Amino acid sequence: MTDKTHSKTDHTSLITELATAGRLAQRKLARATDAEKADGLRAAAKVIRADAAAILAANEKDMDAGRANGLTGALLDRLKLDEDRLEAIACAIENVASLPDPVGEVIDSRTSPSGFGLERVRIPIGLIGIIYESRPNVTADAAALCLRSGNAALLRGGSEAIHSNRALHAAFTKGLAEVGLPEKAIQLMPTQDREAVGAMLKAAGLVDMIVPRGGKGLVARVQQDARVPVLAHLDGICHTYIHADANPDMAREIAVNAKMRRTGICGAMETLLIDANFPAGESVLAAIADAGCELRGDDRAQKLDSRVKTATSEDWDTEYLDAILAVSVVDDIDGAMEHIAAHSSGHTEAIITDSDDAASRFLGEVDSAIVMHNASTQFADGGEFGLGAEIGIATGRLHARGPVALEGLTTYKWQVKGSGQARP
Amino acid sequence: MTDKTHSKTDHTSLITELATAGRLAQRKLARATDAEKADGLRAAAKVIRADAAAILAANEKDMDAGRANGLTGALLDRLKLDEDRLEAIACAIENVASLPDPVGEVIDSRTSPSGFGLERVRIPIGLIGIIYESRPNVTADAAALCLRSGNAALLRGGSEAIHSNRALHAAFTKGLAEVGLPEKAIQLMPTQDREAVGAMLKAAGLVDMIVPRGGKGLVARVQQDARVPVLAHLDGICHTYIHADANPDMAREIAVNAKMRRTGICGAMETLLIDANFPAGESVLAAIADAGCELRGDDRAQKLDSRVKTATSEDWDTEYLDAILAVSVVDDIDGAMEHIAAHSSGHTEAIITDSDDAASRFLGEVDSAIVMHNASTQFADGGEFGLGAEIGIATGRLHARGPVALEGLTTYKWQVKGSGQARP
Repeated sequence: MTDKTHSKTDHTSLITELATAGRLAQRKLARATDAEKADGLRAAAKVIRADAAAILAANEKDMDAGRANGLTGALLDRLKLDEDRLEAIACAIENVASLPDPVGEVIDSRTSPSGFGLERVRIPIGLIGIIYESRPNVTADAAALCLRSGNAALLRGGSEAIHSNRALHAAFTKGLAEVGLPEKAIQLMPTQDREAVGAMLKAAGLVDMIVPRGGKGLVARVQQDARVPVLAHLDGICHTYIHADANPDMAREIAVNAKMRRTGICGAMETLLIDANFPAGESVLAAIADAGCELRGDDRAQKLDSRVKTATSEDWDTEYLDAILAVSVVDDIDGAMEHIAAHSSGHTEAIITDSDDAASRFLGEVDSAIVMHNASTQFADGGEFGLGAEIGIATGRLHARGPVALEGLTTYKWQVKGSGQARP
Repeated sequence: MTDKTHSKTDHTSLITELATAGRLAQRKLARATDAEKADGLRAAAKVIRADAAAILAANEKDMDAGRANGLTGALLDRLKLDEDRLEAIACAIENVASLPDPVGEVIDSRTSPSGFGLERVRIPIGLIGIIYESRPNVTADAAALCLRSGNAALLRGGSEAIHSNRALHAAFTKGLAEVGLPEKAIQLMPTQDREAVGAMLKAAGLVDMIVPRGGKGLVARVQQDARVPVLAHLDGICHTYIHADANPDMAREIAVNAKMRRTGICGAMETLLIDANFPAGESVLAAIADAGCELRGDDRAQKLDSRVKTATSEDWDTEYLDAILAVSVVDDIDGAMEHIAAHSSGHTEAIITDSDDAASRFLGEVDSAIVMHNASTQFADGGEFGLGAEIGIATGRLHARGPVALEGLTTYKWQVKGSGQARP
C-alpha cells in the first residue's frame, strides 16, 4: 500500500469502493454471535502480542520521521509505542471482548392494539468512520468497539502514525481472519490524501456515522464539512457551582480535583461559579491557586483572593485545557444556571451543595449531557461511568449524549410478530 | 403579520430571533409538569372548538385562493376544514394530552465503580422545526406532540394553507397562554419566503432537529439542504416475501391488503417476492390482479399470471404509491434478502411463513426500520404500534427509527449523584 494522489472523482470512487466492501463485511458480521465477536477480539489481541516486534519496528519508523520533522516531545510521546503500551492495547481489546454484546438486546416489548407482538431490538449502526490524530492506540480501541457492537469501521489515522497504524491494523484483521470473521469489517484508509477524508465526510448513505477523535481543530473541521452524522464534542467548558449550602471541605477538595487532577482532559473544570452566600470562597480559591492554577475572575472573585486576575469576556467561553480557571461569584442558583446556559458547551456541569432542593433543581434544569451533584467533573468518562470503554463523549442533542460506549454504537429495529393480521 | 421580502442576512437574523425566543420558551416549558403540559393541550383543544367559526372562515380564504389558483380536487380536499375535521383536530390534541409524558423517565440507573449514583433521564430535545405542506391539521398535530414532550416548535406550513395555519396556531397558543405556558414555545414562521426555510435548515445549534412532513420532493429538498439533523423517510419501497412454507390463504389475504388497502401510504407494499417453492403463487397474483392492481414482473412471475407485464430494472426501485406492484420470483430466503438488501428503502419488509426458522432469520437479518412476520406492511404506523400518535416515520440509522412518537422527540442526560467524590 502506497500513498497516491487521486483526483476528486477517484476519491469519491475510492470511498464508494471501501464503503461497499465494509458494508458487505458488516452484513456478515451482523450475523456473528456474541461469542464469535469476542473470540475475534481475543484473537486480535493475541496477534498483536505475537507481532509485537513488527509493530514496534513500524512505530520506530514513525518516530524517526517524527523526529526528523521536528515533532514536539508531547507529540512524540503520543506517537510512541513500547512493550508496555502494546500490552495495554492488547489488554484493552480483551477488555472490550469481555463487555456484554449490546446487539440483540430487546429494548421494549409490547402487544399492538390489533394483537401482534412488537419488539424493539438493538442492531449495529452499520459502517462507522473514525478520524483520528497521532495516537496509534485509537486504531485498536476504535476497531475493537466497532467490532464488538457488530459495526464495520473505516479508520483514518494521522499521517505521522501511518506505519504504526498499518501494522496494528494488519495484526488486528489477521486475528479476525483466524476466527473466520470478515477482515474487511475493519478497514484502514489506504491513502493519507486529505481529499479522501473529505469524500468520506460527504458519503451520506455509505458511511452511517463519523466519530472524530482528536483536538478541537480536527473536530471543528469534521463538523463543518460532514454530510454524514457526526458524534463528537467540540468543547468541554465544564462548570462547577459551589452553592451557598455546600460543605466547605468537600467544595475545596472537589474544586481542586476538578481543575487540577489533569488539566488537559475535556472533563476538566474551566469555570468555577461561587455563590455569593457561600462562606468559604476564600479558602477554595486559595487552595486552587496554591495548587499552581492561574485564576481569572470578575470583581467579586477578585475580592476573595488577591491572586485573581481580571477576567475578560472571552474567559467565560474558553476551554483552557491548562492550569487556568475562570471564576465568577453569582448571586444564587438562578445566577449560576443563567451563566451556565449562556456559556456552557453542554458537556459536564456540577453543583456542590448539601441542599437536596438545590441539587434537584440543578440536575433537573441544567441541560448538559452530564450533570453532577457533589462530584468532580473529571469523572466525565465512560470508564468511570462503568460503561467499560468509550468511543468518545458527545454533546449533540440526538442519538447519544455524554460518554458513548457500545450502546451508542447501536440503533434498533422494530420486529413485528403477527399471526396473519391484515389492516382493516 | 404580512409576508415581506427579506435579504439573506434578514432571513438568518429572522431565524436567529425566532429560534432564540423559542429556546427561551423551551427552557420554561422544560420546567412544566406533566399535568401542566396536558392542561395546556386541553386548553388548546378547547379554544380551537370555541374559535371554530374564525378558523373555518380563515380556511375558506385558503380554499378560495386554492380554487382561484387551480389546485386539484385532491389538494383542495387536503386543505379543506369543516366542523367534523376541526373536531377531529381538537380530539387528536386531547389524545396527545392523555399520552404519558416521556420527560423525566429514568432510562437506566446504576452505581459507578467509584460509588456514585448514575441515572440516564429523558429530557426534551429542544427546538424542533416542522416543515409541511398543505394539510392544516399538521399545525395542531405537530404542535401537540412537541409540546407534550417539552419541546419548542417552529412550524412552517405550505403557503396554500397560510390563513388556516395562522388561525389554528393563534387558537393553539391562546390555549397555552390560558394555563400560563409560554406562547413562544409554538411559533409559526411569520413569512412564507423560501429563503427563510433555507436559513432554518442551516441553523445548526439554534434548531435541534427538522421533521419534514409531506411528499418526496419536500423531504428530498430538506435532506439535501439541511445542516440540522433531519428525521424523515424519503421512500417507502416496502417488500413482502412469501416463503415456501407460507400458508396460502394467509399469504393471499396479507398480500392483497399490503398492496391494496390504501395504495398511497408509505407502508404500502411496492414489491412482492414469491419463493420459487411456494405452491400457490398463481392464486396470490390472481387475487391481487383481480383487486385491480397492475402487475410488473420478471420472467418467472410472468409465468404465474398472464396479466403480469414485463418489469424494467427501474421497477425494483420505484415507490408507486398507486395500484401497481412489482413481482419477482426468488430462489429462496437468501435470494429474497439479497433483493431486499439491494432495493429496499429501509422502511418496512415482511415475510409470510409458517416456518419459525425462516421468520427468525428474516427478522434478524433484514436491516429495515420495521421487519414483520405474518402481518401486512400497512401496519407500519405509530398508532397501529400503540404509540398513540407519530410525528413521522424515520428510515435513518441514528436516534429514532420506524414510527417516531413522543419518545423520539426526547433525548437524555446523565445525572450523577455523588457524595463528595474526587477522581483519584
